[in-house]
Amino acid sequence: MEYRKIKDQDKDDERLQDDIESLHGKPLSGAPSNNMVVLGSSFSERSKWKVKSIVTLALTLLTSSQAILIVWSKRAGKYEYSVTTANFLVETLKCALSLAALARTWRNEGVTDDNRLSTTLDEVIVYPIPAALYLVKNLLQYYIFAYVDAPGYQILKNLNIISTGILYHIILKKKLGEIQWAAFILLCAGCTTAQLNPSSDHVLQTPVPGWIMAIVMALLSGFAGVYTEAIIKKRPSRNINVQNFWLYIFGMIFNAIAIVVQDFSAVAKKGFFHGYSLVTVCMILNHALSGIAVSMVMKYADNIVKVYSTSVAMLLTAVVSVFLFGYHLSLAFFLGSTVVSVSVYLHSIGKLQKK
Amino acid sequence: MEYRKIKDQDKDDERLQDDIESLHGKPLSGAPSNNMVVLGSSFSERSKWKVKSIVTLALTLLTSSQAILIVWSKRAGKYEYSVTTANFLVETLKCALSLAALARTWRNEGVTDDNRLSTTLDEVIVYPIPAALYLVKNLLQYYIFAYVDAPGYQILKNLNIISTGILYHIILKKKLGEIQWAAFILLCAGCTTAQLNPSSDHVLQTPVPGWIMAIVMALLSGFAGVYTEAIIKKRPSRNINVQNFWLYIFGMIFNAIAIVVQDFSAVAKKGFFHGYSLVTVCMILNHALSGIAVSMVMKYADNIVKVYSTSVAMLLTAVVSVFLFGYHLSLAFFLGSTVVSVSVYLHSIGKLQKK
Repeated sequence: MEYRKIKDQDKDDERLQDDIESLHGKPLSGAPSNNMVVLGSSFSERSKWKVKSIVTLALTLLTSSQAILIVWSKRAGKYEYSVTTANFLVETLKCALSLAALARTWRNEGVTDDNRLSTTLDEVIVYPIPAALYLVKNLLQYYIFAYVDAPGYQILKNLNIISTGILYHIILKKKLGEIQWAAFILLCAGCTTAQLNPSSDHVLQTPVPGWIMAIVMALLSGFAGVYTEAIIKKRPSRNINVQNFWLYIFGMIFNAIAIVVQDFSAVAKKGFFHGYSLVTVCMILNHALSGIAVSMVMKYADNIVKVYSTSVAMLLTAVVSVFLFGYHLSLAFFLGSTVVSVSVYLHSIGKLQKK
Repeated sequence: MEYRKIKDQDKDDERLQDDIESLHGKPLSGAPSNNMVVLGSSFSERSKWKVKSIVTLALTLLTSSQAILIVWSKRAGKYEYSVTTANFLVETLKCALSLAALARTWRNEGVTDDNRLSTTLDEVIVYPIPAALYLVKNLLQYYIFAYVDAPGYQILKNLNIISTGILYHIILKKKLGEIQWAAFILLCAGCTTAQLNPSSDHVLQTPVPGWIMAIVMALLSGFAGVYTEAIIKKRPSRNINVQNFWLYIFGMIFNAIAIVVQDFSAVAKKGFFHGYSLVTVCMILNHALSGIAVSMVMKYADNIVKVYSTSVAMLLTAVVSVFLFGYHLSLAFFLGSTVVSVSVYLHSIGKLQKK
């Protein structure tokens, strides 16, 4: 439970993106440089592909190590710390890292329209939309557990894959070929298969309200992701670190409110850092870095790549857990991994055929 | 156990095909007619497609009702009859049906080189090859149960799908496109997923000799199927009923030997028809008809179509069993069915793209 909470809250805030709509249409400014800031305007196709690969790989590795840290922390005992304070620290760390990267850019290139921190109300006004969607989704999360248990919820969460694909198509108006659609359905089926365990069949007994909530949650989550991509892509030349900075500032505010509303008495009594351990620190660091990686993937790739990346990460985690924790892989895992692998292959074939 | 025996023996004999190599190269004889005999020479592409669809549909429906009859007979109690005598009767019935169809052809068209029953030693000599492969496979079947249980064996049997694809490519030199290969791997993964149950993981503990035997058996079975197609396709104008007649005559001989070797004392003591019931008669009828359908699919379509057809039949059976026997479908079944459906779709896309 706590894990999902920290994870969803985290993703939540990553989608609080900077609105740069008001700057849209402005000519690209600043001389070409090697900095990522002007990526997409001066870099060649090959370099773009390189950056896309690096951020995707980073997201995959960070997401898979995230899950491993969770297993590690579970082995170490129950979560003793306050999840809301940890989430707040994750946002603060992301904010600090974005500022550090920006400072470096300013030193190298000077301040330009694309990398200046200042923003306008026009820009900021669409920020809360993805955040609001996530808030509703997180509220629904508490109610859905009246209908499904936690492992069942994990299974239903794979509906996110399908909803992301559909909303990506509708909102961003980007066409997926028929093979890519087939690949996407396979990705969803493969991930679910890989997570099957002897008690998974319970999920089929989910009552209708549970199904409706699961579908609504998948749509909210998919919509938030795709909407964030839409906002972030509206001006490709805008420095990603500025976009991230505003995103994470909002994340800090939302999480500060969460501390007050949910955990105030406990934090006041036991202290902010009560129960923090080495694992907690590693998890905060990991969440911060993978949050930044998600933003980068949104900027330089898209939601489809993000979904593939996190799905493959899930499989990687399981394989690594065999060596680290002596886990046994199930036949369902092998079958699901095969289907996911074929899906990745078909996705790339479909991409080539569309060109 | 008994079920697999009757089923494998059945398939076995269908592959004992008539060798018509000696007639190869002869010009097509006989005036065009509406009879299936000259299909492929006078029929249009559309009619060919129609016949292909009909035989494929017939195979799918017969195979799925086959499994339903088996459930029915299991519910009715244990098999009381001798499986070898039932197999012998299946071959006899197929032989009789082929002769009846031939008699009708002779009446309508007269006797031609393509539909005459007489054959030469040159033709007959390659018959025993698929049969020999199946004999080895059936012998191995008894040994493999030292390493895996019956449900595990059902799971491993899905390796047949992959072996058929590989050998189809190697022996018949027909190319499958990259999407069709992907679809074939998905078919194997999807069928296996649909069959998963809480105890399926045992199969992963299969010791190395068990795996080797499973792979060898899959190769033998795939080779027998593909080799039969090669023989039967060598002369497209040869009447399928003649090819079937010789096939089933050999089937009768092999099964007569099996009665003597395996069941002689029991049959001599209790009688040939001991333990036969209405279900037994239905099963024999069904096996005979689906045996003929397999031959037809080999003649007018190919092994790939056969594999898809029997895989879809497996899913159909499960769905029908819900209504007939109140079975519950597992989540694994839904996921596997989704993967198989996407596989069928991709196979057809791949086919169109190759044209």
